[in-house]
Amino acid sequence: MSAGVGRLFLVPAPLDFGCAVQSPLQESMPEQTLHIAASLQHWVCENAKSTRAYLKRVGERTPLTAPIQSQSIVELPREVHKKGDHQAGFDARPLLNPALQGHDMGLVSEAGMPAVADPGASVVRAAHLLGITVLPLVGPVSLLLALASSGLNGQSFAFVGYVPSAAAERAQRIKALENLALKTQQTQLFIETPYRNQALLATLLQTLQPTTRLATSSGLTLPDASNHSGDIKTWKARGWTLDNATPTVFSIGP
Amino acid sequence: MSAGVGRLFLVPAPLDFGCAVQSPLQESMPEQTLHIAASLQHWVCENAKSTRAYLKRVGERTPLTAPIQSQSIVELPREVHKKGDHQAGFDARPLLNPALQGHDMGLVSEAGMPAVADPGASVVRAAHLLGITVLPLVGPVSLLLALASSGLNGQSFAFVGYVPSAAAERAQRIKALENLALKTQQTQLFIETPYRNQALLATLLQTLQPTTRLATSSGLTLPDASNHSGDIKTWKARGWTLDNATPTVFSIGP
Repeated sequence: MSAGVGRLFLVPAPLDFGCAVQSPLQESMPEQTLHIAASLQHWVCENAKSTRAYLKRVGERTPLTAPIQSQSIVELPREVHKKGDHQAGFDARPLLNPALQGHDMGLVSEAGMPAVADPGASVVRAAHLLGITVLPLVGPVSLLLALASSGLNGQSFAFVGYVPSAAAERAQRIKALENLALKTQQTQLFIETPYRNQALLATLLQTLQPTTRLATSSGLTLPDASNHSGDIKTWKARGWTLDNATPTVFSIGP
Repeated sequence: MSAGVGRLFLVPAPLDFGCAVQSPLQESMPEQTLHIAASLQHWVCENAKSTRAYLKRVGERTPLTAPIQSQSIVELPREVHKKGDHQAGFDARPLLNPALQGHDMGLVSEAGMPAVADPGASVVRAAHLLGITVLPLVGPVSLLLALASSGLNGQSFAFVGYVPSAAAERAQRIKALENLALKTQQTQLFIETPYRNQALLATLLQTLQPTTRLATSSGLTLPDASNHSGDIKTWKARGWTLDNATPTVFSIGP
């Protein structure tokens, strides 16, 4: 807590959310991130239950300033989850009242960096509007770990979110992303709900040209992390597969 | 070192490269990243001198397995620096001989994540070709810290590298990026050599529409970090400025 107006910390969460095996937090979190997380008592989050579970893990390593039950943990409304921060037209300013009253606050999502491929941008925007200092903390970001591991162009890249789940539209979208990647040399990254990993991979292997490069990163920061990268010919020759349970980032490029 | 073939670790470096003040490594690096970095003895890097300086800092916190002087530290050729990994057509496989001989290796750049807005993708690609396991370690990534802090759309974004330095081309490029961002809702991120920060900001304030949002992140992870975000009207009203020394990430969107 600081005098005057509090700050908004963007607090990354580990990438093992919902996974059977969890790694010790210090494997993917710097000490400072854990210390600051342990000191905060006012949160805006994607999901209150998973925030409490995360704070419990933080507390096992760094004593919390206040017990979890006495902390203020406010969820973003369902509308923001469903439509995304930018479509929902949500005014997050009221959520930041604790900061205006002088309390440092944390924004946290279920896994990785809040406001990146996850809800929270409306809260960051509201903080800037109110003159609240925004400070991001270091932690795991699956998209960038995946990009680095892909061997694809890291000087120009785009993350395009989820691809369509219907087969025909999915194939069409993938073809469009491939054309863009080959024409502009801009790596195209995308994600899918884990239970559709295998369906997406099948479409990619059927749809992409033999010389186009495809990379996947699954289980990042976990003991069974796996990063594959090769052209479609190589994928078929080596018979690489994915399971339908592990969060995976896909990327394509020349 | 492991039996059989070694692995390639992607080792992030702190973001304070070349800065007057350096922060303790544990502020931006997880313990595991430092432990693995301290255990490696074979490196491919952007710059050998800065790699040695980084290893010296790692060693002050976690004892190095071997003294720096006895480690193998090989720089990527100048061609890769100048043209980028994808234009240079560089075959990095010979650099990975130590891994084929059973040694774990590290890939490191001067700041942040190797192979992301930095050289190294050709080495990652060569590792995949040789069947060497690629494992990214967690650390600071300026682009994603900047995106999270911007309040701009984090569900769809692109990093487009450097903008042109000549004034007319710079303005033209910025206009094109603004059009793309407004039309597609895809946040556009870019960087500039720090000594041109002020010139770039001036062009942005002159060129962008009053309602377009501009965000800058300077000195990320450093004590004097500063994140600004607002529409162009707000930028002008508040008179936010940048210095010509601090690495800065720029982003624009609706």
